Amino acid sequence: MSDSINDKMATLGLTLPEVPLPVAAYVNCVRSGNLLHLSGGLPIRADGSMITGKIPTDLTPEEGQEAARLCILNRLAVVKQEIGSLDKVKQIVALNGFVNSEPDFQGHPVVINGASELLLQVFGDRGKHSRTALGAASLPLGVAVEINLVVEVE
Amino acid sequence: MSDSINDKMATLGLTLPEVPLPVAAYVNCVRSGNLLHLSGGLPIRADGSMITGKIPTDLTPEEGQEAARLCILNRLAVVKQEIGSLDKVKQIVALNGFVNSEPDFQGHPVVINGASELLLQVFGDRGKHSRTALGAASLPLGVAVEINLVVEVE
Amino acid sequence: MSDSINDKMATLGLTLPEVPLPVAAYVNCVRSGNLLHLSGGLPIRADGSMITGKIPTDLTPEEGQEAARLCILNRLAVVKQEIGSLDKVKQIVALNGFVNSEPDFQGHPVVINGASELLLQVFGDRGKHSRTALGAASLPLGVAVEINLVVEVE
Repeated sequence: MSDSINDKMATLGLTLPEVPLPVAAYVNCVRSGNLLHLSGGLPIRADGSMITGKIPTDLTPEEGQEAARLCILNRLAVVKQEIGSLDKVKQIVALNGFVNSEPDFQGHPVVINGASELLLQVFGDRGKHSRTALGAASLPLGVAVEINLVVEVE
Repeated sequence: MSDSINDKMATLGLTLPEVPLPVAAYVNCVRSGNLLHLSGGLPIRADGSMITGKIPTDLTPEEGQEAARLCILNRLAVVKQEIGSLDKVKQIVALNGFVNSEPDFQGHPVVINGASELLLQVFGDRGKHSRTALGAASLPLGVAVEINLVVEVE
Repeated sequence: MSDSINDKMATLGLTLPEVPLPVAAYVNCVRSGNLLHLSGGLPIRADGSMITGKIPTDLTPEEGQEAARLCILNRLAVVKQEIGSLDKVKQIVALNGFVNSEPDFQGHPVVINGASELLLQVFGDRGKHSRTALGAASLPLGVAVEINLVVEVE
């Protein structure tokens, strides 16, 4: 089967990581009808370590963007595992982005753009999503960003 | 086409604002099947300024209610743009309301009632929604309230 | 009608509480197609009191797990009221768990496991859900945990 999204990702220098193991008693993804509901993903590096810390004290907003990108890459690995090929993604429907942030932080849109822009690069119009970005008081394992998705598939 | 919701809003003295531009790399709304998934909306005044600050230190809960109302008005402007008439709204399915609040704040239900009661006034039974209200550590641009919606349409 | 989930809950020593009254201007559940969207549920004890406080300062993570269990029990009471029998639950699709936590808390997965493990015990494979757990700055009425659900039904 051709996999044009795979080719697009290669052109962008992007590779899918290993599918992460859920850190507790749940699963990465549940399909209902033609919608995939993905669990909140964490910013896991290729070596298995995670990007942790609060924004903007421990990390800059730009470092937060990288965390958001990593969340999306491992979410896409989950989607591929679920449906076989990212070419079967019809639309990224909704993205919720949670930023581990200080009480006076206001730059959540910039941070979560790291996720949104990656989706637009990879999927084009099919990557245009509704989005909610906000500041969490704290996040699992101390990560900087957590992102979940709802994805419509063929 | 008749637009009874439009008439109802006029009776209530409500007018829809301009559709807001997303503040980053996403869209206001994605439709999947007969569900609209709306991005998190911010409390934008008619002059384009936003209601900012934490509750209850910078703003009272009553001022927070007004912020919640403004979020809903601009969300409804998005719905109208998407489907042409608010008469095509079948049911407000889900509302998530995030309050920019101090760690000891407990009055989120009162604040988000500003949104819920407006929906009930405008849509009657079709406005009865499931809801989650909670306190965010911080919100984009420092706004007081952020609200997203899932809306079933004809 | 047989109600095997009811039997399973009895075996586990679990009883459904009274269906809680929403604390504000919304409803407990909205059905759209075959999906139930449940409002954020609070940890209500049998006597009507709630488990309140921040984790881990006011409550231990283990006490937080109990709060998460209570949230699920009253969410299941809502589901049963909506569809008549929990046997009609096809799949728990998504769970969002919000922990009233200090800024440096990292144990959200442990806390929300109180909810997830209960769903797995009661529903088996049908209880396997996607999940997002995070820290809220504050929660309604000062509760320790708030949980909403999306549930697919027959």
